[in-house]
Amino acid sequence: MFSDIKLDKNMPVYIQIKDYIKGMILRGMLRQNQKLPSTRELSSILKISRNTVICAYEFLEEEGFIYIQKGKGAFVADVQINQQEGWSIEWNSQVNDYAKASEELDIVKHEAKWKKGMISFKSIAPDESLFDVEEFKKSFLNRISIEGEKILNYGYAKGYKPLIEYLLNYMKNKGVDINGKDLLITNGFTEGFDLILASVTEKGDKILCENPTHNTAIKIMRLHGLDIKGIDVDKDGVNLQNLEAQLAENKFKLSYFIPSYHNPTGIIMSAEKRLKLYRILKQYNIPIIEDGFNEELRYSGTHVSPIAALSGEGNSVIYIGSFSKILFPGIRVGWILADKKLIGYLESIKRSRNIHTSFLDQAVFYDYLYGGNFERYIKKARKVYKDKYEFAVECAKKYIPCKEVIGEGGLHIFIKLDNINSREVLEKCCSRGVIFTPGDIFYTDDSGFNTLRLGFSRVSKDEIEKGFKIIGEVVKKSIQY
Amino acid sequence: MFSDIKLDKNMPVYIQIKDYIKGMILRGMLRQNQKLPSTRELSSILKISRNTVICAYEFLEEEGFIYIQKGKGAFVADVQINQQEGWSIEWNSQVNDYAKASEELDIVKHEAKWKKGMISFKSIAPDESLFDVEEFKKSFLNRISIEGEKILNYGYAKGYKPLIEYLLNYMKNKGVDINGKDLLITNGFTEGFDLILASVTEKGDKILCENPTHNTAIKIMRLHGLDIKGIDVDKDGVNLQNLEAQLAENKFKLSYFIPSYHNPTGIIMSAEKRLKLYRILKQYNIPIIEDGFNEELRYSGTHVSPIAALSGEGNSVIYIGSFSKILFPGIRVGWILADKKLIGYLESIKRSRNIHTSFLDQAVFYDYLYGGNFERYIKKARKVYKDKYEFAVECAKKYIPCKEVIGEGGLHIFIKLDNINSREVLEKCCSRGVIFTPGDIFYTDDSGFNTLRLGFSRVSKDEIEKGFKIIGEVVKKSIQY
Repeated sequence: MFSDIKLDKNMPVYIQIKDYIKGMILRGMLRQNQKLPSTRELSSILKISRNTVICAYEFLEEEGFIYIQKGKGAFVADVQINQQEGWSIEWNSQVNDYAKASEELDIVKHEAKWKKGMISFKSIAPDESLFDVEEFKKSFLNRISIEGEKILNYGYAKGYKPLIEYLLNYMKNKGVDINGKDLLITNGFTEGFDLILASVTEKGDKILCENPTHNTAIKIMRLHGLDIKGIDVDKDGVNLQNLEAQLAENKFKLSYFIPSYHNPTGIIMSAEKRLKLYRILKQYNIPIIEDGFNEELRYSGTHVSPIAALSGEGNSVIYIGSFSKILFPGIRVGWILADKKLIGYLESIKRSRNIHTSFLDQAVFYDYLYGGNFERYIKKARKVYKDKYEFAVECAKKYIPCKEVIGEGGLHIFIKLDNINSREVLEKCCSRGVIFTPGDIFYTDDSGFNTLRLGFSRVSKDEIEKGFKIIGEVVKKSIQY
Repeated sequence: MFSDIKLDKNMPVYIQIKDYIKGMILRGMLRQNQKLPSTRELSSILKISRNTVICAYEFLEEEGFIYIQKGKGAFVADVQINQQEGWSIEWNSQVNDYAKASEELDIVKHEAKWKKGMISFKSIAPDESLFDVEEFKKSFLNRISIEGEKILNYGYAKGYKPLIEYLLNYMKNKGVDINGKDLLITNGFTEGFDLILASVTEKGDKILCENPTHNTAIKIMRLHGLDIKGIDVDKDGVNLQNLEAQLAENKFKLSYFIPSYHNPTGIIMSAEKRLKLYRILKQYNIPIIEDGFNEELRYSGTHVSPIAALSGEGNSVIYIGSFSKILFPGIRVGWILADKKLIGYLESIKRSRNIHTSFLDQAVFYDYLYGGNFERYIKKARKVYKDKYEFAVECAKKYIPCKEVIGEGGLHIFIKLDNINSREVLEKCCSRGVIFTPGDIFYTDDSGFNTLRLGFSRVSKDEIEKGFKIIGEVVKKSIQY
């Protein structure tokens, strides 16, 4: 039976032999005190060196599966063979409403799946071919040589200190007053937003946001049982009349806005509107969660400060930052800048949920940022994305009959069709090898059925043209019927 | 004013100059259309190369803060200066009960703090000097060269596939039947446990566990509003009479056990007891969460299967695994092995909370494990820790007058004093430069006031002897009064 072992050439052979014999013992295929083949025999059966077998036997002895009698050989130890007494539970009926809602609202599980050869406009993740992996590698090697052991051991819930300092300074350079504030490192925007809602809201609380807005934010707000009121968005950001009307009617606990390259519309809230919005919310005393999403991806010449910069020493704006839509989302590093006391609470919740964000990733990311790599990278990335953005807008206008192509930039464009259901368009496009995100998932109400988001960050210009043509053809046909 | 810039020699100078000027503009210290010093002037003021200044100006232009007129120089652009209209919120009154409880139960914030020169027996984190950082580095370089760009971009909520496959096989080698099961990668044990409670329990549900038990688990159970019933622990694990009495009286939703090198007692639940416990819980149909804590740190010769191995194709045991107490806790990688359907729900919750665990860390960790490094490392670590464990037990028995030194191994020993309050001992020890963990934090009821946990993983033998002597002296004095 030993000749059955299938060896994987990329894994140490002695470990494979060890595990194989362990498995046989645990399944009762080798009895207690049974003699194993000698190291010489086994090495000849498997055509491997005798030392490899000796090493495997040593590990088996170390792990308590065999004992070795000098001059006699190796024998199976007294290992308790598992009594397998199956006992099953119907987990579907055990999980709670939160778990069920999480799965229902989990778009990834229910949306059109990408298949090989398809052109997908679903993603707004960065184009990984732009990453300067070499610089990242240098930062890794640098940190590992300076403090490798330390960053591989436990760290602190608040985050890796040098990274916190770097980001505080980074926020200061955006014009934000950091007095009385503090910074918590999170596993990206998603964790930041979830932690804030977990700490401040109660089921049934009302929250204000743009309509449409980031679908993950909608999911998280729903999972917290919040009553979401979405405010229509104009070309320069949220509609203030609509906002005031909502404020007059309802009492809100919090508000959430994405001022730059808003997801999904790509709209930039103007500086004037930011100030007006800030003043209105101040008047009603409704704290603001500002999502710094894509703020770094500025295509136009003018600088617009984040809303957090308007508050001076005030503490009513909670800023969530993340480079994930631009750089290295795989490492999941984001941050919350907020009032010191609030950060204290968030830190404790963070600790109770996952202790801290990977210290290795934080240290390497810090080293990368500190070396000025982000500035150089963003300059390059901006050029590539801006170029693609302009091409995508051009193609959209040329090929897709629609009411409006919205937005001023970002990694996606947002389209309003004439009274055509974008899910029906998606279905037909899908059969022709093109997929995109139907816009309704970004709406807080039932509107948006005629909208779609086209992410272009990870497709080539050729694919943009080819894909948009197909979408356009499907839309044209839909108009005819 | 430009001569004020304090340059940090480790950061690119052009970025520091860029940020300095940006800050001045945002604070209104440079007016719109004001001329900046020429690149020649500024380079001579700062004693840096002119190219550096040119580079800084280029970035300032790129970011929209200045404009350059050929032949005339650089001028401040039309940048909106932040109106700072402070608006403050009393966050203490805004946060909810969950946030408040998180902070109250956050032991790190309230316990005796380590100061330089102290001997601390608080930690049970691994000794980082044992880490084979070189092998980890090799794994990083290997993964980065094979798929660097990919693992730095978004991954999947369930985890990095090769790591999932590796761990499924790893669990199989522990005798666990993986049919009908699946595996979710989590940010360590803490996230795993939190996700399970979040998906299955409701406020007020009853949960069974050992008493004492892992303090982080107690915190998480409390934060979920669970009614915790702790079962006394005998030398070979949980007391079954006590268990049956609890089961007869209460209806439990879940149970939670740490069978190996139990935290804080270091007790190993015997194979016979594991089977009996399993059968009793099966009879009452109460799913088991098995904490694989320190299972890898076997000091004795015999192999004991995890409880999850008893269930065969059954799905009623949820196993949480983590190497964090042994290896690289800083990267926060753990896993849940459970019923496929349940993992589906947990995956959706995980996605809604932080998208996924760092793909970089997962990939590097996979590479490290796959190369057989863990087996070699654990062999070495076991020897060191076992030696220290035996020494610690010896010292404890020699120096600390007590009722009992409990446990069979692990990275800590647990001591029961004679009717002496360990917090009072701690206070006196603290003033003599020695700290440890008072045992009461591990108890689900108000008992355990006379217990303490002494972690020895990160202290030297000399420190163990010196520290235990001091603890012993303090205890002796307490007996006299």
